[in-house]
Amino acid sequence: MSTTVLQRHLFGPGPCNPYPEATAALGLPLLGHLDPAFIARMDRVGDGLRTLWGTKNTRTLPLSATGSAGMEAAFVNTINPGDVAVIAINGLFGERMCEVASRVGAEVVRVDHEYGTPIDAERVAAAHPNPTVIAGVHAETSTGVVSDIAALGAIKGDALLIVDAVTSIGGMPVLADEWGIDIGYAGTQKCIGVAPGLAPFTISDRAFERRVQKPQSWYLDLGLLGGYATGASGGGRTYHHTAPVAMVTSLEAGIDRILAEGLDAVTTRHQEAGKLLQDGLEAMGLELFATEGYRLPQLTTVKVPEGTDSAKVRGYLLERFNIEIGGGVGQYANTVWRIGLMGPNANPTSVALILAALKEAIDKA
Amino acid sequence: MSTTVLQRHLFGPGPCNPYPEATAALGLPLLGHLDPAFIARMDRVGDGLRTLWGTKNTRTLPLSATGSAGMEAAFVNTINPGDVAVIAINGLFGERMCEVASRVGAEVVRVDHEYGTPIDAERVAAAHPNPTVIAGVHAETSTGVVSDIAALGAIKGDALLIVDAVTSIGGMPVLADEWGIDIGYAGTQKCIGVAPGLAPFTISDRAFERRVQKPQSWYLDLGLLGGYATGASGGGRTYHHTAPVAMVTSLEAGIDRILAEGLDAVTTRHQEAGKLLQDGLEAMGLELFATEGYRLPQLTTVKVPEGTDSAKVRGYLLERFNIEIGGGVGQYANTVWRIGLMGPNANPTSVALILAALKEAIDKA
Repeated sequence: MSTTVLQRHLFGPGPCNPYPEATAALGLPLLGHLDPAFIARMDRVGDGLRTLWGTKNTRTLPLSATGSAGMEAAFVNTINPGDVAVIAINGLFGERMCEVASRVGAEVVRVDHEYGTPIDAERVAAAHPNPTVIAGVHAETSTGVVSDIAALGAIKGDALLIVDAVTSIGGMPVLADEWGIDIGYAGTQKCIGVAPGLAPFTISDRAFERRVQKPQSWYLDLGLLGGYATGASGGGRTYHHTAPVAMVTSLEAGIDRILAEGLDAVTTRHQEAGKLLQDGLEAMGLELFATEGYRLPQLTTVKVPEGTDSAKVRGYLLERFNIEIGGGVGQYANTVWRIGLMGPNANPTSVALILAALKEAIDKA
Repeated sequence: MSTTVLQRHLFGPGPCNPYPEATAALGLPLLGHLDPAFIARMDRVGDGLRTLWGTKNTRTLPLSATGSAGMEAAFVNTINPGDVAVIAINGLFGERMCEVASRVGAEVVRVDHEYGTPIDAERVAAAHPNPTVIAGVHAETSTGVVSDIAALGAIKGDALLIVDAVTSIGGMPVLADEWGIDIGYAGTQKCIGVAPGLAPFTISDRAFERRVQKPQSWYLDLGLLGGYATGASGGGRTYHHTAPVAMVTSLEAGIDRILAEGLDAVTTRHQEAGKLLQDGLEAMGLELFATEGYRLPQLTTVKVPEGTDSAKVRGYLLERFNIEIGGGVGQYANTVWRIGLMGPNANPTSVALILAALKEAIDKA
């Protein structure tokens, strides 16, 4: 272990600093994964996740891996070789969906959008007459853009709608049932305010009935997982794999924290912190990257000023202030910063700190 | 969260109670997964895991999921459709290997052994003249049996040797390089004494060079993972997915704890605790399940006495003593108990407790 314990302000694209309740729960005595008390905990987590997802789906559970495995689970369980996947791409995570889907054997139909802009549902609808799945990212972590998922739900037709809600869940409204999401996956380390390591996941009955019967992944086979995590296999709880019990306990505490504050109050807090930050950045003369009207409050993308060295500023923030912010991705690696205010960090204190620190860093780095 | 915090003695097949250092580390302030301080931590974890695995393999890392995902990673990265996998089966986890390998498209050649007996390397060698991989379980969690992995290494020929070390690593010697293991996977929640959630993994250069170039799993693609976790891609650290930073920090602390005590001392402690337990069980008139000479010290299988209700005894232990032990698996579900003494639980105190408690439970349940 390092001899010095660092206390970072995690204002990057995630992980954020966890809610203190979520961290405290990691220190609780461990339970076995088949302990009746742990099974009850899984049930509570399922209930809490249904609230965060805005769904009644029975099969709503934390997968035992990070958000990217949630993406893989979505495609592995829905795509048989040759099936058509229409994928809206307006950032890195849409791009990644194409890669994951193609490895499962999908015929991928790309609908490319300019980075920084939202998904255009009409273009997605026009891309293919009869796709097996349509997929898109609700809150693009790479660009700071929110897309209208209800609009995708409205045009999905008979296709299953797969949605990446990694950065939206817990920080802005996600209404899976109302919007027509068939499969949603997320991460714990963004607005849910829990350490990374689990992928909150939900799948509708409609999608579950159409699922791949023997997916190439045993670990992410929802037919098998359902038996353990939701008791939905009909035969009660069956052992599948050893659940990451400490992380699930932390997730329970994080969800409890959110629901105690009130989900509406939490999303409002994210909204207000993001607005404060974005106004403050513009007042400093900086230019925001994402299209106006489609800016995520919880993850702000801002252009690096002409003549400023992006990496030097990030290094200065880390070394002088213990503040982490993110660089851009792909072609924007050095021209965009990503500033996250997620979970407990979505508050005016964090905004004041990052604005002051960033100003000094730009001036002095 | 439950209003009552339960303090269980986890004497089942895993998870065990973690080392206190590993639990304490979960409460440390979180680092970002790309923070230089976290990268240094990943390096240290890699070094520590090399010691536990007995290997010099550069690509030695914790996968971001549980041990079962380690099994999946082993096959996903080595098997192209139609490749022959000779799999030694002497328990549930050998059985699971067949399922995982077949989903990747392997032609599985089964070498079945009676449950409770070790793997017979000669039978494995005779099963197929030229397999792509040979696979077996070092310490079968389902039966409490240890197998001679060096003997498999000696007969592997040109095949890659895949070994499940989930229950052995950290509790008994594992000498990957000396024994000829090409790919090994494990879990954190057994003798390493850390909560479940990561899969310590190692792959030899020989296996890495022969790897599947574009495995069906993006999440478990070692070609991509290596770039982040080991910097071995040549281009330095590249982002792949968000590492479960809290769990990795806990793993670092668990490994530090083991190495501070001394790996030899730790394995001796497991050896001695297991011997004490097994002698004590026999002194109580109980019969051990695993073949003599091949009994795991860290996981003891014992036959349920004639006329005793297995589940009632386990329920009594849990309710009266907060002690968890495991039932058997498959056809032995109700006729065998599994008692684990792993990590910090491998000590005379635990032995005295479980023997006294089990005696009362058998008498009174």
